[in-house]
Amino acid sequence: MERNEAIAIIKEHLPEKRFIHTLGVMETAIQLAKTYHCDEKQAELAAIFHDYAKYRPAEEMKQIIIKEGMPKELLAFNTEIWHGPVGAVLIKNEIGIDDEDILNAIRYHTTGRPGMTTLEKVIFLADYIEPGRSFPGVEEVRELAKTDLDGAVFRSLQNTIIFLAKKGFAIYKDTLDTYNSFLLKGGINPSYDKS
Amino acid sequence: MERNEAIAIIKEHLPEKRFIHTLGVMETAIQLAKTYHCDEKQAELAAIFHDYAKYRPAEEMKQIIIKEGMPKELLAFNTEIWHGPVGAVLIKNEIGIDDEDILNAIRYHTTGRPGMTTLEKVIFLADYIEPGRSFPGVEEVRELAKTDLDGAVFRSLQNTIIFLAKKGFAIYKDTLDTYNSFLLKGGINPSYDKS
Repeated sequence: MERNEAIAIIKEHLPEKRFIHTLGVMETAIQLAKTYHCDEKQAELAAIFHDYAKYRPAEEMKQIIIKEGMPKELLAFNTEIWHGPVGAVLIKNEIGIDDEDILNAIRYHTTGRPGMTTLEKVIFLADYIEPGRSFPGVEEVRELAKTDLDGAVFRSLQNTIIFLAKKGFAIYKDTLDTYNSFLLKGGINPSYDKS
Repeated sequence: MERNEAIAIIKEHLPEKRFIHTLGVMETAIQLAKTYHCDEKQAELAAIFHDYAKYRPAEEMKQIIIKEGMPKELLAFNTEIWHGPVGAVLIKNEIGIDDEDILNAIRYHTTGRPGMTTLEKVIFLADYIEPGRSFPGVEEVRELAKTDLDGAVFRSLQNTIIFLAKKGFAIYKDTLDTYNSFLLKGGINPSYDKS
């Protein structure tokens, strides 16, 4: 699918602010794909459609989660983490994109997952650092993203966990598992020691 | 087992600083047990023995984790989270305490677990706020602990997750599950929304 066609489709599904965010994610994802040698066309399409399901009614998303046999735990969480996995299903069925690499990049763009592909990391990160983002810590991740993809993804996960814990919001296990996966494979020792 | 006998045993297993910490946990646990109406004698014994395994050689703890069929994930983590579950086994076998309530309070005192009993919360919290502790945030948890056991346990978990994430240390899933369990049952909506 050509970029312009994809953009015309997504424009119909998003409010103006989210559409501008999407264009930012697209530009950032293409740049990251160049830097980290993954397919620019896949990155472009995954970025354009990453928030496809974001404004679907909660009840519609819930029914898809149940029908598709997705983890039941999802339902206990805010709809914010539903639009990735639900989006992957809807984009396949409604848009006809069946490239599993693209669909997985959309599926895991909010939570991450252990063993993310480069494309998945690119979309996850582009969503976090696109030029419209302005939360604390984003500039440091933008700098890291220029030279260290894993470092930037890890820092995003770290920031997200701290943000959610400070707010007292629930943290989805995939986010924790992804965060831990960067540490445990590297043999870095965690510690609960308070003394 | 009488308090003095238990204290005499534990003194042999801990360095001076940790022994003093243990006496602080004991006093705090008894006070919390009074406030929240759980058995003071169970709280006393669980507190005295909670760090029983803390100075065992890592290799000995590892063999117990394997032999007892504990979750393999434990082994990927720092030994800091081994001494709770390993301690429960050793205290049963070496000291002869077979009260499962006491053993569970020791087993989960570092990580927590969803559905903690009142005794488990008391020991978890006493370990966190005993008078010798002086890390940031402890005073707020001490105040909370006077009137709100769940609130204080939740705040401890929140602080621990933030502390570990800031340091870039791995976070054990039981800690996350316990943190989430306080939120999801209460219907509080978490959010990953950054905008």
